[in-house]
Amino acid sequence: METQEKKISQAIIQRLPRYYRYLGELLSADVDRISSGDFSKLMGVTASQIRQDLNNFGGFGQQGYGYNVKNLYEEIGRILGIDRVHNVIIIGAGNFGRALAGYSDFEKRGFSIKALFDKDEQKVGKTFGGIQILPMDRLRSFIEENQIEIAALTVPKHSAIELADILKDTGIKGIWNFAHTDLDVPDSIVVENVHLSESIMRLSYNIKSRNGSVK
Amino acid sequence: METQEKKISQAIIQRLPRYYRYLGELLSADVDRISSGDFSKLMGVTASQIRQDLNNFGGFGQQGYGYNVKNLYEEIGRILGIDRVHNVIIIGAGNFGRALAGYSDFEKRGFSIKALFDKDEQKVGKTFGGIQILPMDRLRSFIEENQIEIAALTVPKHSAIELADILKDTGIKGIWNFAHTDLDVPDSIVVENVHLSESIMRLSYNIKSRNGSVK
Repeated sequence: METQEKKISQAIIQRLPRYYRYLGELLSADVDRISSGDFSKLMGVTASQIRQDLNNFGGFGQQGYGYNVKNLYEEIGRILGIDRVHNVIIIGAGNFGRALAGYSDFEKRGFSIKALFDKDEQKVGKTFGGIQILPMDRLRSFIEENQIEIAALTVPKHSAIELADILKDTGIKGIWNFAHTDLDVPDSIVVENVHLSESIMRLSYNIKSRNGSVK
Repeated sequence: METQEKKISQAIIQRLPRYYRYLGELLSADVDRISSGDFSKLMGVTASQIRQDLNNFGGFGQQGYGYNVKNLYEEIGRILGIDRVHNVIIIGAGNFGRALAGYSDFEKRGFSIKALFDKDEQKVGKTFGGIQILPMDRLRSFIEENQIEIAALTVPKHSAIELADILKDTGIKGIWNFAHTDLDVPDSIVVENVHLSESIMRLSYNIKSRNGSVK
């Protein structure tokens, strides 16, 4: 069935994966349906926020019935594009790259890690958790031959900038950027940044602010 | 000099570390001052946004002069609370924990990693990058004795929930949570979540949306 999907605000997109996570937990606990009131308590957001967010997708809730957990879970999965497999490579086989490669949750959600890449010849040729570490000169051909959609960059800042420049001439559709820099790529490539330094600075700010230090 | 700091919206707090990063880069490049126009081009946000954000802190910009890079950098650092050292422990000495422990950027920004903790007896007693791996039964006393403020949790979901319950009775002020779950802690403890599964789902959504797939 083909239906037009309207543009959804980034604010809602930020929240959708969290709905998806809670729905997955309800599903694992064999919960068939949930009222927006109960869902609201569980997630710690208002019932009206839940209704507003989920009504963007045509409204799954029925008066007096609540939400059908399985349907809503599958529908949000479809909206997020995780109802199919995405092929992923990780560039940078350091601690972070290996941590990502070993994270089984990604595979479960349809993100299939096809290779690690590293410029260190000591690492190339080894495998990590069953995933091979390849040399950088294999990057372009590997992306094309394996329909790689997503490249995770777990490399230093200057390398990430160089890599973004190489990746823009490949079929890569998304960069998952762990380097502490913004990347300049064409609009056809989506960048999702995970800036850990910024995250810990927000934590620092909020600790300071919560403890009421004024000086 | 003591001045009242007004409450700043979380939206601005989200952006402050990015200003801080760019100002740090300008400083490294020996740039003394920058106009809001140039700063706007560099960061890819509007000049009016920059002025609005930075005016929250009393307004550092001067007509015809622009921003004094060093002053603004230091002032934002002070606001973020990174003008002093925060003692940090990492609970979970797996790949993620070790990746965090090895990330020199944190130390540079005043986050001093004092120990790793793990329940795996094979790991306990070893050091990683000069940081010792301690057993879980040392957790409470170590936090008290070393004025630990922040605990990074790089453990599975069920362990994170148990740990949050233990940490709430210690002097910990902030939890940096990498586990794929929300944590229930008193208001006195700040939680900053890094949910990588949610991040890659947003990437997936945006790839799908950017490529205009409607089905």
